[in-house]
Amino acid sequence: MAPNLDNPSPVVALAGGVGGAKFAAGLQAALPPGALTVIVNTGDDFEHWGLTICPDIDTVLYGLANVNNPETGWGRANETWAVLTETERLGGEAWFRLGDKDLALHLLRKQWLQACATLTEVTDRLRQALDVPSRILPMCNEPVRTLVHTDEGDLPFQDYFVRRRCEPTFRGLTFVGADNAALAPEVAESLRAAAQIIICPSNPYLSVDPILSVPGLRKLLRESDAPVVAVSPIVGGRAVKGPVAKMMREMGHLEHLPLTVVEHYAGLLDGFIIDQQDRAEENPLPLPALVTDTIMTDLPSKRRLATEVLQFGQSLRNGNRSADGPRHENDE
Amino acid sequence: MAPNLDNPSPVVALAGGVGGAKFAAGLQAALPPGALTVIVNTGDDFEHWGLTICPDIDTVLYGLANVNNPETGWGRANETWAVLTETERLGGEAWFRLGDKDLALHLLRKQWLQACATLTEVTDRLRQALDVPSRILPMCNEPVRTLVHTDEGDLPFQDYFVRRRCEPTFRGLTFVGADNAALAPEVAESLRAAAQIIICPSNPYLSVDPILSVPGLRKLLRESDAPVVAVSPIVGGRAVKGPVAKMMREMGHLEHLPLTVVEHYAGLLDGFIIDQQDRAEENPLPLPALVTDTIMTDLPSKRRLATEVLQFGQSLRNGNRSADGPRHENDE
Repeated sequence: MAPNLDNPSPVVALAGGVGGAKFAAGLQAALPPGALTVIVNTGDDFEHWGLTICPDIDTVLYGLANVNNPETGWGRANETWAVLTETERLGGEAWFRLGDKDLALHLLRKQWLQACATLTEVTDRLRQALDVPSRILPMCNEPVRTLVHTDEGDLPFQDYFVRRRCEPTFRGLTFVGADNAALAPEVAESLRAAAQIIICPSNPYLSVDPILSVPGLRKLLRESDAPVVAVSPIVGGRAVKGPVAKMMREMGHLEHLPLTVVEHYAGLLDGFIIDQQDRAEENPLPLPALVTDTIMTDLPSKRRLATEVLQFGQSLRNGNRSADGPRHENDE
Repeated sequence: MAPNLDNPSPVVALAGGVGGAKFAAGLQAALPPGALTVIVNTGDDFEHWGLTICPDIDTVLYGLANVNNPETGWGRANETWAVLTETERLGGEAWFRLGDKDLALHLLRKQWLQACATLTEVTDRLRQALDVPSRILPMCNEPVRTLVHTDEGDLPFQDYFVRRRCEPTFRGLTFVGADNAALAPEVAESLRAAAQIIICPSNPYLSVDPILSVPGLRKLLRESDAPVVAVSPIVGGRAVKGPVAKMMREMGHLEHLPLTVVEHYAGLLDGFIIDQQDRAEENPLPLPALVTDTIMTDLPSKRRLATEVLQFGQSLRNGNRSADGPRHENDE
């Protein structure tokens, strides 16, 4: 039976940065306006120049607004660098590359936060200003900060990721503040109303685990009637972008990395989308899988992948999903 | 006797915005590097976009660094507007025109203030970054905010000056916070060490009175052995720039405005510099006066005026000053 994508029920995506933003753009293109809600990692957020920088929210926001820089994966297209150039000249820190257009958004976010708006409200105002039809929800309103444990000690996320370029050996993570975070009403409502929930091809450790660390969120996924699927961030045994494969190997996962991803999401998934390059007959996945081309190079390829994933999820919803499927194994 | 300007003792100037910055640039050009200290009004400072904007400090800083915009009188030359344009597009406030280069400085100032540097320290770091040989001292480190009393009620300075373009009728001023401000050690030391003290051609009410409102500062001027002179901000019965003449008339001063300036500074001055257009035989000034061309159009004219004022001040120092001169009339 062909799924009806013209009038779908709400779809919720969990996303980190670049990979998540690309897939979310595909979902937005495949779905009617307003059908998509993206819950975004804020563990990478940090204070810089007295501003609150939310790298993953902004990457998703810019991607969905189609104003992102496709070359770098972060920041704005047609960006200029007047402020950063002058800041450097005046003796300021310039290791984090803040462009002028990007900075305008950070300045507004700070002002609105200082006027006591929540990060959820501020993000919604920004996505409306950028004419994004999808909802973008920070995983929570409280600050949660990812601390990376490495062989060289604990590093705040941006130090590990930007300054040290993920070079120190990865040992694990702590999401500082997650215990005190609250499930935002908008996040809870969107997950409860979802007809499909999709974990984007984002780094499971750095991008998705912070979202899953928000108290109550993992439970909502487990209890949802909607099919929950994840798109593999691994292609041909390597990360499309970022350090995920390196981190997995440093964690001792040397074989078939897509299976490592599935095992990482144990108890949450009804289905998994694996790249055709990673099909491994000797390593059958323990849950329904869609094998396809997961490389996203342009909007048509993002949209094509998103459509396949939506159809796959809908097929699980329509009866292919076993009541005692793997989602309920290893349940908390 | 020709004054020795090649090896002068320290000169301190009290300055507000555009007129003060132009005259200070003349002094800097006329004096050896490091001889000039400018004490600057901070009553116009305000919070905007979460940043601390110090309009008069920046006008003096940019003027002395020769990076100012001579067309507008405020901001940087060769400025760009990428951030403001994007801020406006995203729904932010854009009534205060913050250029990109200007913004870089405000962002740095905020960061450094947040790192617990004083405004004096931050200002000194910025003037060094901009290769300014003169010292620039904020009148104090504590926030003092000029409140303008008008026939339409009380207005914060920027509301009166920028948003309302000085249209409401002026009734008076309060320098909120001045009572709790402390004389910064650098300000006190510079005044004690000064061989000459010059009140720049700035608005006496809006630019100089806030400086004089800092507890202890007026007393240092009165007790100084150095000659204290003021340069008239009035030329031909009108302000060179800004609302000073309008404000004087709204305060009921309808005749010979330079005399109004002298009377305003009663008890402080040893000499006064009046523009040749305002020479009025029927209104002799009650103190030694230098009558000259006070219009400053370029660096040579700024330097020429500064040199004349320095020579005039030095002549007062060298014996023309009467011990019971007007400085001690109307003393507090």
